Amino acid sequence: MRRMSAFSRDDLLQRDREDPLAFTRDWFQIPDGVVYLDGNSLGALSQHVRARLEEVITAQWGQSLVRAWNAHDWIDLPARVGAKIAPLIGARANEVTVGDSTSVNLFKLASGALALRPGRSVILTEAGNFPTDLYVLQGVAEASGGRVRVQALPRHDLIGALNDEAALLVLTHAHYKSAALWPMAEATQAAHAVGALTLWDLSHSAGAVTVDLNAAQADLAVGCGYKYLNGGPGAPSYVFVAARHQERLGQPIWGWMGHAAPFDFTDAYAPAPDVRRQLAGTPPILSLSALDAALDLFADLDMSAVAAKGQDLVDLFISLVEARCAGLDLHLMTPRDRALRGSHVSFAHPQGHAVMQALIANGVIGDFRAPDIVRFGLTPLYLRHVDVWDAVETLRHVLTGRLFEAPRFQARQAVT
Amino acid sequence: MRRMSAFSRDDLLQRDREDPLAFTRDWFQIPDGVVYLDGNSLGALSQHVRARLEEVITAQWGQSLVRAWNAHDWIDLPARVGAKIAPLIGARANEVTVGDSTSVNLFKLASGALALRPGRSVILTEAGNFPTDLYVLQGVAEASGGRVRVQALPRHDLIGALNDEAALLVLTHAHYKSAALWPMAEATQAAHAVGALTLWDLSHSAGAVTVDLNAAQADLAVGCGYKYLNGGPGAPSYVFVAARHQERLGQPIWGWMGHAAPFDFTDAYAPAPDVRRQLAGTPPILSLSALDAALDLFADLDMSAVAAKGQDLVDLFISLVEARCAGLDLHLMTPRDRALRGSHVSFAHPQGHAVMQALIANGVIGDFRAPDIVRFGLTPLYLRHVDVWDAVETLRHVLTGRLFEAPRFQARQAVT
Repeated sequence: MRRMSAFSRDDLLQRDREDPLAFTRDWFQIPDGVVYLDGNSLGALSQHVRARLEEVITAQWGQSLVRAWNAHDWIDLPARVGAKIAPLIGARANEVTVGDSTSVNLFKLASGALALRPGRSVILTEAGNFPTDLYVLQGVAEASGGRVRVQALPRHDLIGALNDEAALLVLTHAHYKSAALWPMAEATQAAHAVGALTLWDLSHSAGAVTVDLNAAQADLAVGCGYKYLNGGPGAPSYVFVAARHQERLGQPIWGWMGHAAPFDFTDAYAPAPDVRRQLAGTPPILSLSALDAALDLFADLDMSAVAAKGQDLVDLFISLVEARCAGLDLHLMTPRDRALRGSHVSFAHPQGHAVMQALIANGVIGDFRAPDIVRFGLTPLYLRHVDVWDAVETLRHVLTGRLFEAPRFQARQAVT
Repeated sequence: MRRMSAFSRDDLLQRDREDPLAFTRDWFQIPDGVVYLDGNSLGALSQHVRARLEEVITAQWGQSLVRAWNAHDWIDLPARVGAKIAPLIGARANEVTVGDSTSVNLFKLASGALALRPGRSVILTEAGNFPTDLYVLQGVAEASGGRVRVQALPRHDLIGALNDEAALLVLTHAHYKSAALWPMAEATQAAHAVGALTLWDLSHSAGAVTVDLNAAQADLAVGCGYKYLNGGPGAPSYVFVAARHQERLGQPIWGWMGHAAPFDFTDAYAPAPDVRRQLAGTPPILSLSALDAALDLFADLDMSAVAAKGQDLVDLFISLVEARCAGLDLHLMTPRDRALRGSHVSFAHPQGHAVMQALIANGVIGDFRAPDIVRFGLTPLYLRHVDVWDAVETLRHVLTGRLFEAPRFQARQAVT
C-alpha cells in the first residue's frame, strides 16, 4: 500500500474511474456542492424511490383509493419489504417483517423475550448504547414492576457479566459513535451459553457492512429503514425473529395487523402463527413504499463488495486525516481494523461542535455527537474516493483557520 | 321537507349548485366514473397533499438531506400536526401530538391510564368495538399479569356496569359498523362518577362530525389520520391527553422522541413534561407530512357546517334507499337521528358481500363488513348530492338484478 500522503486528488479521481461500484452513485440525487457524509443518519433520495412515490401517491392512492389495499397489495407490503431486507442481514424471507419505529419494535421484542425467560431478572446491554435502546429497555424493566432490571456495562465488562440471571443481551451491532462492531457470533454464543437470548440492533450496520444473523445463531433483531437502507426520513423499522422462536415469541401490542385473521373482525385476539404477529397497527404506506423501492437498489449488488468499498473509504479517510491533518487535535475514535468496525468514522476534537458547524457551512455534511465527536458516514453506494479527499481538505482548512466559521447560534443537532 | 321519492336527479344537481361547501370537492382528485363512499376507510388524495409530498420528497429530503430536521423543522412536526388536529376535536394545541399507529397509541394510553388507577381491575369497553381496540386492550390486560381484565359489554349494558372496579372506559365515538355515536359528555360523566378515566377512539368521527373533548371533560383520546382527515394510507395516529393529566400520565414505550431532552443523548430516560412524552421513536416523515398538508384543508372551514352537510347526505341516502329500494331487503343499521350518528350509513342485506362486490364493479365504492353489512361513507368534503343519487340508483339496479355481477372470487376486504 502506498503511503497516503503521496496521493493526489487526481489519483483518487482515477480510482473512481476504476471503481466497479462507481455506477451506483448515479442512482442517487446528491445536491451539487455537497459531500454527504451523513447517510448513516439519513440515507439519500434515489430516482427509483422518487418514481415509486409518485406512482404510489398519484396512481395507487389517488386512483385506486381504498381498493389499493388489494389491487396493489398494500396488505402484504410488510412481508414483501421484510423479504427484501432478509438477504442483507443473513435472514430467511419469512423471518423479517416491517412496521412501526425501531423504538416500538425494540419494545415488542424485548418484552416478548422476557416472557420466554420468566425466571431471569437481568437485561444486559452496553453503557453508552444508542439512547433509544437504553430508554426502551428501561421502560420494559419499569413495566415489569421490579421483576427485571437493566444492567448497562462498559463494553469490555459485558460478556464477563453474563450469568444465569441474564434473560436477554441487547447490543447494537455497530456503535453509533465509534462504529465499533460487536462480534455477533461470539457474543451470541456467550449469551446462549448461560441461557440468555440476544437482541441485535442493526441500525448502524445493515446495508453497509455484511450482517449474518443466522450464521451467528442470533435470536432477535431490529433495524432502521432510513440510514444505510435509504428508505427516507422516519422510514419504518424491521423486525427479525429467528424461525425457531416465532411460534412462542409473543409481544404486548396486540394490534389487528398481527392477528391471525385480521379481516375476520372477530372480538378476540389470536396472534398470527409467524413473524407477522410482531406487527401492530396499519403501517404508514407512503413511508413503507419508499423503503420498499429503496431496497430494490440492493437486489443485484454483491453485499460483500459494497461493504469492502465502504471500508476502503473509511481507510482512506483515516489515512488522509493522519497525513494531512496531523497535529490538528483530531483523535481517532474508530477501530483501525476494518473487520471490527461499521462504515462510519469518528474523531474527537475539543471544539467538535464548532468544527462540524463549519464543515456543514462549507458543504461537508457529517454530524456532531456530544461531547466532542465529529462523525462521518462513508456510505458505499453514493460516495466517491474524491469525495473523501474533498472532505478531508475542507476539514484541514477548517482546522487551520482558513474556513473556520464560528456558529452564530447553537443549532439543534440532526437526528441520528 | 319534500317527500324524497319526489326528487329527481336534476333536483339534486340544483342542490349541488346551491351548496356553499361544493367548492371543497375541487381540492380532491376523485377518479372519473367513481362514486367514492369509502372516505371513512381511506380518505381521498388532494392536490395540496400531492404538492406538499413533492416538496418534502424532492426539496426537503432530496436537497436538504439530514439538515431538513432543522431546516424544515421535521423535529416539531408531531406537535405542529397535533396543533392542527386540536380544533377538530375540541382540544387545545398543547394537548395533541401525532406519531405511531392508532393501535400503538391505544396501547400507550391504556397502559398509562391503568397506572393512574392502581387499585382497579377492569377496563370496560363495548362488545363489537373496532377489533384493534379490543385486541390492544386484551394485550394490555395480558401484560398486567392478571391484575386487570377487559369487560366487553353490549352498548345498552355498558354504563350500568360502571363501578369502583373500573379503571378505564374505552369507547369508539362513532361505531365503525352502525355509525352510532356515543354521547361523549354523558358517558364521560358516568365514568368520572365512579372514579374511572375515559379513552375515546375518534377514528370514525373526527373530521366529519363535531367532536368536543374538553367540553365533555374527556381524559384521553386517539384517532386515525387516514380516514376523514385524508392524510393518506397508514397516516400516523394522534394522541390527546387532557392538560390536567399530562404530568402524571406515563406510557411504557420509552423512546427517545418522548425524552425531555432527546438531543442530550444521555443514558437515562426522563419523560418530557408534556404530551410529547407520548411519542416513542422517529415518526414516518413522509406520511406525517401528508397528514400535515391534509389538515390545512380544514383550516378555514366551519366544522359544524361540514358536519351538517355530512348529515344531510346521510339523510338523503336513507331517504332515497327507502323510496327507491323499498322491498329489496335492505335493513337500516344506522340511527335515524342525525345527532346520534357519524357520517356513514350501513344496511344489512342477506347477500351483502356480493352486493358490495357488484357495486364496486360498477364504480360505487363502499365496503362490506361481516356478516352482512354494506357500508357507505358520506364524506362531506368531496361528495355531492348527485353522487348519493347515482349510488342509490346503482344499488337499486344491482338489487333488481340489472347490474348484479357475482364476484368471481372471494376478494379480501378493504382495510377499515
